[in-house]
Amino acid sequence: MFFNVKTTEEVLELVQGFLPVGEESVLLDRAFGRVLSKEIVSPEDLPGFQRTSMDGYAIKAKDSFGATESLPALLEIVGEVGMGQVPAMTVAPGQAVKISTGGMVPRGADSVVMVEYCHRMDQTTLEISRAVSPQENVIQPDDDFKRGAVVLQKGRRLRSQDVGVLAGLGVTEVHVHRKPRVAILSTGDEVIPIQGKPKPGQVRDINTYTLRAFCEQQGAEPVTLGLCRDDFEQLRNMVVKSLETTDTVWISGGSSVGTRDLTLKVFESIENTELLVHGISISPGKPTIIARRGATAIFGLPGHTASAMVVAEVFLTPFLARLGGETAFSEKPQNKVLARLSRNIESASGRDDFIRVRLIRKDGEWVAEPIFGKSGLISTLVEADGLLRIDRNTEGLYQGQEVEVMRFKQA
Amino acid sequence: MFFNVKTTEEVLELVQGFLPVGEESVLLDRAFGRVLSKEIVSPEDLPGFQRTSMDGYAIKAKDSFGATESLPALLEIVGEVGMGQVPAMTVAPGQAVKISTGGMVPRGADSVVMVEYCHRMDQTTLEISRAVSPQENVIQPDDDFKRGAVVLQKGRRLRSQDVGVLAGLGVTEVHVHRKPRVAILSTGDEVIPIQGKPKPGQVRDINTYTLRAFCEQQGAEPVTLGLCRDDFEQLRNMVVKSLETTDTVWISGGSSVGTRDLTLKVFESIENTELLVHGISISPGKPTIIARRGATAIFGLPGHTASAMVVAEVFLTPFLARLGGETAFSEKPQNKVLARLSRNIESASGRDDFIRVRLIRKDGEWVAEPIFGKSGLISTLVEADGLLRIDRNTEGLYQGQEVEVMRFKQA
Repeated sequence: MFFNVKTTEEVLELVQGFLPVGEESVLLDRAFGRVLSKEIVSPEDLPGFQRTSMDGYAIKAKDSFGATESLPALLEIVGEVGMGQVPAMTVAPGQAVKISTGGMVPRGADSVVMVEYCHRMDQTTLEISRAVSPQENVIQPDDDFKRGAVVLQKGRRLRSQDVGVLAGLGVTEVHVHRKPRVAILSTGDEVIPIQGKPKPGQVRDINTYTLRAFCEQQGAEPVTLGLCRDDFEQLRNMVVKSLETTDTVWISGGSSVGTRDLTLKVFESIENTELLVHGISISPGKPTIIARRGATAIFGLPGHTASAMVVAEVFLTPFLARLGGETAFSEKPQNKVLARLSRNIESASGRDDFIRVRLIRKDGEWVAEPIFGKSGLISTLVEADGLLRIDRNTEGLYQGQEVEVMRFKQA
Repeated sequence: MFFNVKTTEEVLELVQGFLPVGEESVLLDRAFGRVLSKEIVSPEDLPGFQRTSMDGYAIKAKDSFGATESLPALLEIVGEVGMGQVPAMTVAPGQAVKISTGGMVPRGADSVVMVEYCHRMDQTTLEISRAVSPQENVIQPDDDFKRGAVVLQKGRRLRSQDVGVLAGLGVTEVHVHRKPRVAILSTGDEVIPIQGKPKPGQVRDINTYTLRAFCEQQGAEPVTLGLCRDDFEQLRNMVVKSLETTDTVWISGGSSVGTRDLTLKVFESIENTELLVHGISISPGKPTIIARRGATAIFGLPGHTASAMVVAEVFLTPFLARLGGETAFSEKPQNKVLARLSRNIESASGRDDFIRVRLIRKDGEWVAEPIFGKSGLISTLVEADGLLRIDRNTEGLYQGQEVEVMRFKQA
């Protein structure tokens, strides 16, 4: 039945074979969470002037040499640096100028004594109880970034502090990858819209909602097409149309053999479409189909929501990262948690098992508690915090064993 | 100078003293990432009918008792269940009905034999090579959720599969907490808008952008007010106005003593405002001020972006979770990663140090590599993957020691 069954690793490699989507330009205040499509080079030296990192007094360092609490150095206070101002004065030997964190170090001064080590005797006399070295507490004009230096690499998903750094450099607009557009389409004669009341034998369209939210979570743009009957022409038309306007097409919904066969027939009927995967040696999630048409991947996902979620978590997460141009994704797996297993789990060999687990904090450690339940139940999904992989070459895992849990991403 | 210096724990407790914001109703397709303000109770039994979780044949279990590969049971095939249909037939002793995953189990049948153990001899004769127990591969009408059962607790931030489960229950609209509205306001005479070219002594407004993105990341709604000069009246007016329209006010931007003093004066000048925190015994981030006016928290954040980021990560993350009504937040810390420290770090006692670290994967473990650099540099922020806390009762940490890193949230 499955002629092209692939292993987890084979499918992971396959999805990396697709190319990132194109780019667009966005204003910096819309850039959070987006993926850079071009590296960012510093347009200027930053901070661009000698700046102090402490509150205190700007002096010539050698005027402080030898100063101690019992034998303080005495200096003449000749002024104060205004914030945001170029100080007018020049610091001569024996002189000190009051300065606040972030202030511009005046000409003649080469260091700043922290206010904690300064004692103002009167309007013009300063006692210093500790020596400073030249450049101490002073940031040089290019200490943060040198003009032309690479600030952020292409392929980086921007975090809040990355956006902040770009603001600091005056980068008001950035080139980012478009959000991958994902066509989501449910099929299956037993599936009805969620607004309806299912008759016996019918179920509501869960997968459209799960997959839509999953796309949002991964920074992709879901395009939900709704329901399609188990009808060859209708399904084929919807898929063909989606191929023109989106970057990938995901079909899911029905759980029956009929729906699965139909999806496969539709894939095979579309010109220039190559069937890459017909079944993955995993449980749950085996009946997954992947085809390629040109640059576009088409997925036939299992109808069971729990199975579809496993396939999404394991394969569609790195697939969307790849499509979205994220390069550092695989290096820094966001969501791997080490935990101790609460009980033995048996596993059939020849396939990778993905077990839903609850994570419980106990004595400063995580404990992974497998959630069992009939396949096809959706209640187990809300209880689970993540997935545990049991490799196909393993017959099971033992109670107390340390395991790596793929934690479900929070919103 | 700091009369009301608090420890990390004291401030964490304090921010939990504020109340969650009000609620609103959103459609399910807008509910991903939102926090439930009311528990969700199942409006009906789910799936609502006897459903099979496997492809196979629906039979009376006792007709399979004793069946083995060498001595299979023989049954008469009397029909097939259509997906989404109520089967018209009743299964009598000795009979079998073909059924697909998700199909409704016909009257008279109490179990489903998986297709793998069935062999169709001809149009009407089925051979079964394995016995099933009653209810095997059958989901009962209330196996997933019983009408009236609690499906999701109040205070839960909805993940993609949670949204899916609500779809399955026909919940098309949910009550969620509003997104907390955060007024963000930068001050400091040296700070200019990011579009400008700083003159010597000036810097661009980094914090507005960092904090705006931070709010988005935490599911809050930033209201950026832009820049304010170091002017008592102007700053006071902006804060007072914001107090009317937002749920919390964050002032940041300038790093000078002058700005800090001004912020404090403004806080003290507003009627019915209680100063809760004047300094936190942490580094960086000490010069943080927190006041309370009625139900609203006002924060004076350190001007240095790196310090502001530490305060945001450590205190504003749980504060926004609290404001947003998230209750499971503290139980399931999203982003704690165990890592081995790459080198010794000394630390002053009497304060908690938060060290920026890079996380590197080595031999299946995380290694935490401290990033040092002059305070006030922003370049260290883009290099860091997270923060390492050195407790104030500790003099330092050792190379090779296992440490817990607070990982910066990705977008």
